[in-house]
Amino acid sequence: MATQGQVITCKAAVAYEPNKPLVIEDVQVAPPQAGEVRIKILFTALCHTDAYTWSGKDPEGLFPCILGHEAAGIVESVGEGVTEVQPGDHVIPCYQAECRECKFCKSGKTNLCGKVRTATGAGVMMNDRKSRFSINGKPIYHFMGTSTFSQYTVVHDVSVAKIDPQAPLDKVCLLGCGVPTGLGAVWNTAKVEPGAIVAIFGLGTVGLAVAEGAKSAGASRIIGVDIDSKKFDAAKNFGVTEFVNPKDYDKPIQQVLVDLTDGGVDYSFECIGNVSVMRAALECCHKGWGTSVIIGVAASGQEISTRPFQLVTGRVWKGTAFGGFKSRSQVPWLVEKYMKKEIKIDEYITHNLTLGDINKAFDLMHEGGCLRCVLKMNE
Amino acid sequence: MATQGQVITCKAAVAYEPNKPLVIEDVQVAPPQAGEVRIKILFTALCHTDAYTWSGKDPEGLFPCILGHEAAGIVESVGEGVTEVQPGDHVIPCYQAECRECKFCKSGKTNLCGKVRTATGAGVMMNDRKSRFSINGKPIYHFMGTSTFSQYTVVHDVSVAKIDPQAPLDKVCLLGCGVPTGLGAVWNTAKVEPGAIVAIFGLGTVGLAVAEGAKSAGASRIIGVDIDSKKFDAAKNFGVTEFVNPKDYDKPIQQVLVDLTDGGVDYSFECIGNVSVMRAALECCHKGWGTSVIIGVAASGQEISTRPFQLVTGRVWKGTAFGGFKSRSQVPWLVEKYMKKEIKIDEYITHNLTLGDINKAFDLMHEGGCLRCVLKMNE
Repeated sequence: MATQGQVITCKAAVAYEPNKPLVIEDVQVAPPQAGEVRIKILFTALCHTDAYTWSGKDPEGLFPCILGHEAAGIVESVGEGVTEVQPGDHVIPCYQAECRECKFCKSGKTNLCGKVRTATGAGVMMNDRKSRFSINGKPIYHFMGTSTFSQYTVVHDVSVAKIDPQAPLDKVCLLGCGVPTGLGAVWNTAKVEPGAIVAIFGLGTVGLAVAEGAKSAGASRIIGVDIDSKKFDAAKNFGVTEFVNPKDYDKPIQQVLVDLTDGGVDYSFECIGNVSVMRAALECCHKGWGTSVIIGVAASGQEISTRPFQLVTGRVWKGTAFGGFKSRSQVPWLVEKYMKKEIKIDEYITHNLTLGDINKAFDLMHEGGCLRCVLKMNE
Repeated sequence: MATQGQVITCKAAVAYEPNKPLVIEDVQVAPPQAGEVRIKILFTALCHTDAYTWSGKDPEGLFPCILGHEAAGIVESVGEGVTEVQPGDHVIPCYQAECRECKFCKSGKTNLCGKVRTATGAGVMMNDRKSRFSINGKPIYHFMGTSTFSQYTVVHDVSVAKIDPQAPLDKVCLLGCGVPTGLGAVWNTAKVEPGAIVAIFGLGTVGLAVAEGAKSAGASRIIGVDIDSKKFDAAKNFGVTEFVNPKDYDKPIQQVLVDLTDGGVDYSFECIGNVSVMRAALECCHKGWGTSVIIGVAASGQEISTRPFQLVTGRVWKGTAFGGFKSRSQVPWLVEKYMKKEIKIDEYITHNLTLGDINKAFDLMHEGGCLRCVLKMNE
């Protein structure tokens, strides 16, 4: 492309300070260096992790930065040594990298590739420990190695999943975070089996993806737990079979669920990020085998706790990141599953806006009726 | 036998009050009712759980009672409907029952049979919710469904493992608790694989059995952690390859272990019952896959805690009771393994005394050099 090797000036939403509205700016995006890929982002969704860092509660949060990590686009150019993608490829940026070479990737036990973590956690690129974003020469930090709230972004090549060019980018952008996280928590982390009883705490996008995953795994009962009863109707479409609102009961929610299920659920999933709910999710599990998976991200410094007897009597406490999916290997597979109508995506998208409306999109996210808002970038 | 159907008067160590010396008394042991088995206990060992309840810290502890749960003996008589053992059979009483009929037994996922739990937890027998022990008509509570600090005891038939009559009862009595707990934590709960790096917190009998189990599973490094460095020499014989004394370091022990192992251990085992150590045991695990198993019993009301990020980044927190072994099915198999010299028992027995010396035996237990003290009952 004509832009290859050049600095590109484009629009991006810049977070200058915690909690202050994002500002749409003309940002300079440097060309990709060795092992890097510059992507033209066509669609990005918003996720609660963006809001969390924006809020200032994330101790790793760096400002000014360009947030965003659930998106899809087209490769504009690649740096030296990049072989797995080329300009024109349709891609999903992956905040969880997969290098296939590190101790983690080679373990066969985890998706938590460690190759670029020290750079992405510091808002820079590995090569020179610097940012590719700047405004009039002043650097703007990267975020989660993706920074998709920009019309162009630069990512490490180990963080790019090449997907079917036929896939609609305005839909499959959701496969960058929330939907795989929920599906994978069920399929990869908990390994829910047919007939199992499942409880889901929090019926946002991740919780609904958990429900969808549990339904496809053959769960016999899928109990949705949320303090907003209005969410139940939508949740039914994703597989939730029963709904419990903790506000309707005087006794602790874990006891409500134990009573409802003759001893507890087989699997529970915490999709909120609340440490008290994490405890309830563990303690509503059946003695002897119940497994609880933490998906939500708790505020910095907060701790989970329980009596050790809960574990000694057979419950298992786990967590998951990106649902345990190996990003570059498995995101394309999830795209295929969507194309074959084996997993939902469209149903999670409740709003469509443009980059210029991003502050409004964040406001929507905090309202009950919004699951995912997808922003079109090139307007 | 001549005693069948009769009340037997025999010697037992009675705990009248928390923390007061046990008293050797003449106790009346009623005949077994339907589904019950009366056992002549020949040898019993002491375990820290006996000391825990005796200390008064166990909220389920009931006094007066007859403690003891790690023993071996011979069936004296059986109640109506008991078919799987008969007088003369050599047996090990099992505090963890196995009925093969309840939801737990049939799940295939746990050894925590629930059939007699409500009775054994209340110090009585299921049949009439009463004790079979009395002194001059005053009932004495059962303990853990076993009460082996008596020359005769009555247990539920689901709590009796019939073993090879050739097995030396003064040795295999240890298969009633500590040794299976450690071996099973490795083999059944953690499922340690060849090459794994293991950390063991607390090098008492259970911790050493963990080491033995890990060695037989092919662990590449077995790191023993204890604040008593004198334990290392004995620990080597059970498979411990490295020793770490937290007192030798300024930094937290979890950090010491992470540094020693290039990122953390694959499996850790807490064999003490200290909630701070439980946290350290989790946090010394490797990101992505490290699994920590709680074996020790913490004091009532104490809680474990950690940052949820520890689990979200792939660590797993579990616990185990009786090492996950199905008692009636697998204790006889462990006896066979001992007879074939595939597992150690003799090496755990550091002291041999008689029932009359039981208070001295408890004193010994709190000294560093004692692993297991076996009491001969019929003197």
